[in-house]
Amino acid sequence: MKLVATETLSRLTSLHCSACGTKYSAFDLQRTSTCCTLPLVADYDLHEPLGRDAIDQADSSMWRYGALLPLLHEENKVTLGEGMTPMLNLPRLAARHELSSLLLKDEGQNPTGSFKARGLSMAISKAKELGVDGCIIPTAGNAGVAMAAYCARAGLKAVVVMPRHTPQAFKEECYWYGAEVELVDGLISDCGARVRQRNANGALLDISTLKEPYRLEGKKTMGYEIAEQLNWQLPDVLLYPAGGGTGLIGIWKAFQEMKALGWLAPHHALPRMVAVQAKNCCPLLETYAGRQPNCHSYQGSPTLANGLAVPHPLGEAMMLRVLRESRGTVVSVSEEDMLAGMRDLGQQEGLFVAPEGAAVWMAARQLLATGWLQRNESVLLLNTGSGQKYMDNVAGRAMR
Amino acid sequence: MKLVATETLSRLTSLHCSACGTKYSAFDLQRTSTCCTLPLVADYDLHEPLGRDAIDQADSSMWRYGALLPLLHEENKVTLGEGMTPMLNLPRLAARHELSSLLLKDEGQNPTGSFKARGLSMAISKAKELGVDGCIIPTAGNAGVAMAAYCARAGLKAVVVMPRHTPQAFKEECYWYGAEVELVDGLISDCGARVRQRNANGALLDISTLKEPYRLEGKKTMGYEIAEQLNWQLPDVLLYPAGGGTGLIGIWKAFQEMKALGWLAPHHALPRMVAVQAKNCCPLLETYAGRQPNCHSYQGSPTLANGLAVPHPLGEAMMLRVLRESRGTVVSVSEEDMLAGMRDLGQQEGLFVAPEGAAVWMAARQLLATGWLQRNESVLLLNTGSGQKYMDNVAGRAMR
Repeated sequence: MKLVATETLSRLTSLHCSACGTKYSAFDLQRTSTCCTLPLVADYDLHEPLGRDAIDQADSSMWRYGALLPLLHEENKVTLGEGMTPMLNLPRLAARHELSSLLLKDEGQNPTGSFKARGLSMAISKAKELGVDGCIIPTAGNAGVAMAAYCARAGLKAVVVMPRHTPQAFKEECYWYGAEVELVDGLISDCGARVRQRNANGALLDISTLKEPYRLEGKKTMGYEIAEQLNWQLPDVLLYPAGGGTGLIGIWKAFQEMKALGWLAPHHALPRMVAVQAKNCCPLLETYAGRQPNCHSYQGSPTLANGLAVPHPLGEAMMLRVLRESRGTVVSVSEEDMLAGMRDLGQQEGLFVAPEGAAVWMAARQLLATGWLQRNESVLLLNTGSGQKYMDNVAGRAMR
Repeated sequence: MKLVATETLSRLTSLHCSACGTKYSAFDLQRTSTCCTLPLVADYDLHEPLGRDAIDQADSSMWRYGALLPLLHEENKVTLGEGMTPMLNLPRLAARHELSSLLLKDEGQNPTGSFKARGLSMAISKAKELGVDGCIIPTAGNAGVAMAAYCARAGLKAVVVMPRHTPQAFKEECYWYGAEVELVDGLISDCGARVRQRNANGALLDISTLKEPYRLEGKKTMGYEIAEQLNWQLPDVLLYPAGGGTGLIGIWKAFQEMKALGWLAPHHALPRMVAVQAKNCCPLLETYAGRQPNCHSYQGSPTLANGLAVPHPLGEAMMLRVLRESRGTVVSVSEEDMLAGMRDLGQQEGLFVAPEGAAVWMAARQLLATGWLQRNESVLLLNTGSGQKYMDNVAGRAMR
């Protein structure tokens, strides 16, 4: 379906190829770029003045930033109230580690219990707007659950393809949303291959990470919220668990957009961005460290942090660009350290976080130990999900 | 510790006995009333003008209503970002059942995955303010998890006493917060007896439902949010899953306070309040229907909706008063119907709700069938928690 942007608040103008910049229409259904077969990125008119008062203060969800989101018509919005998650101080852990400012944004309080709600709310809204009948996704767990929920809400067919070893809670929740679940031996990359095979006729929209342009736009709202919740003063360092990397890329995109709009002070330094991976699957670290040219033939293994078990992220080059531009780095965390991080956050701060979130805290401790992170720098941890769905895999490990 | 209210926004003035009205100091540590051994209720100065602009719009949590909450000093606030949960339209279920307006407030998006976060954030904040060292609670599950989380956050000792048959996820989450968990054969009433025995010396603060006055104050914020989110126009009928009943009583209290403050139009009709119970444990229904004088010797059995397995609610008289004043009613729901309701909300609206929330939807369907509820009336369902922690007990039941 061809869309015409009438009576819309959205500043959406076009899409461009993330590699070569070739422009694409934002008003037709698009997947990856046909030029480079790489992710497409949404562009907005950021020259026409738009003040922070464009934020809809009456809307306690990510949709408060509507002008900078790609949805054209309100009636296509598929929402469960995602976004505007809490920004929490961690005073007890900060004191224990002599940090002057330690914050955590808790994405576990989103619908379906993870940050994936943002991307899928946006992608399924756009799928509805573009007249799609159904969607298919390869997933490590949380994205599949979120897609199943938003497809149910929109009345669209949903097919979720996930690794057989994914904790049962992820599969079961998909069933409650009426989704079809297919289990595959292997990691998310193997699920991706199965999706391509099964959907060869293109009957369903493939919602794989960065294979359609709008999950990224949902994820970027984390960046807008971080700035707004911190009164437009960004932290010195931001640590993020990077599997597919959409969040890392999206937050950085939001910072650039806010700079262009004048929402951040012109000379405000942007945070150094830290990508946190699992030792069991750290393709970005291996490329970053120069031990491989890129992730294409990286071999990973499963990890408690199943969202980090992404051996071949399509957005690898985009993530590396964020790390370079922000003078950031990559850190990997062991399985044992994830459990230790879950204990720290649970016992000291009352937060039952996903292993991904725990990894981020342990990465901060590593960077403190090496001196890359200074104790007087302000630090923001992103916890991407609730620990709840990981319960089966971490049961009995709460005490040391 | 004796508190003096200096430099506070709180309008808190006193406490009163819910049965006889005797006044108590709000500046000392209190439990139930010494006159009637019944719940104490907080009073505020509602005569001095206070406009809706007293709501702190920059605060996306229940703490935005600070003037009408009992905390005296900001530094004692123990928060994980609870409240301001989404108010969602259910257009697909409404169309299917020819309802003109069907809304659901999703309390599953709170910290620790349930509405209990509100009451416990408030009670533990006040416990900290009053100088308490540790807390103990009998619980059907969610309240214990929430107390463990907020105690960890506050650095207080936590003891949680729950029925042995409670799903494992509730116990396990308490361990991650470092709480001590004691398991008891029986229902929450048996856990209450064990708490009284174990805490005979009063070393810990007993946070049982309505045995201290502040969980109620946290719960009432649902009422304020409902009004604010609906632009100060309340629904015709509000359905609520009532176990201990603090939420039902608290929401009604908020409506009264808003009337007194002039936040609601003088002639605005308040909603008819419906208490929803499980057929396996419905003491309120039995009393309401005149089949017993009160719940004191009621015998209940376990239910999927473990939050409704409360055979002897201390707030029974207070709940009956709400039903009478609002011209409401009580409905009970079978185990099979709870599962059917979970399927309805999951497959049609993308919501994975607790069995308690599913019961509320099925109660609405019962009341539609009997004609007590008219199709042109606006209906609000309260879902008190996420389905996640109930996974073990509902696994394999997603499809009919």
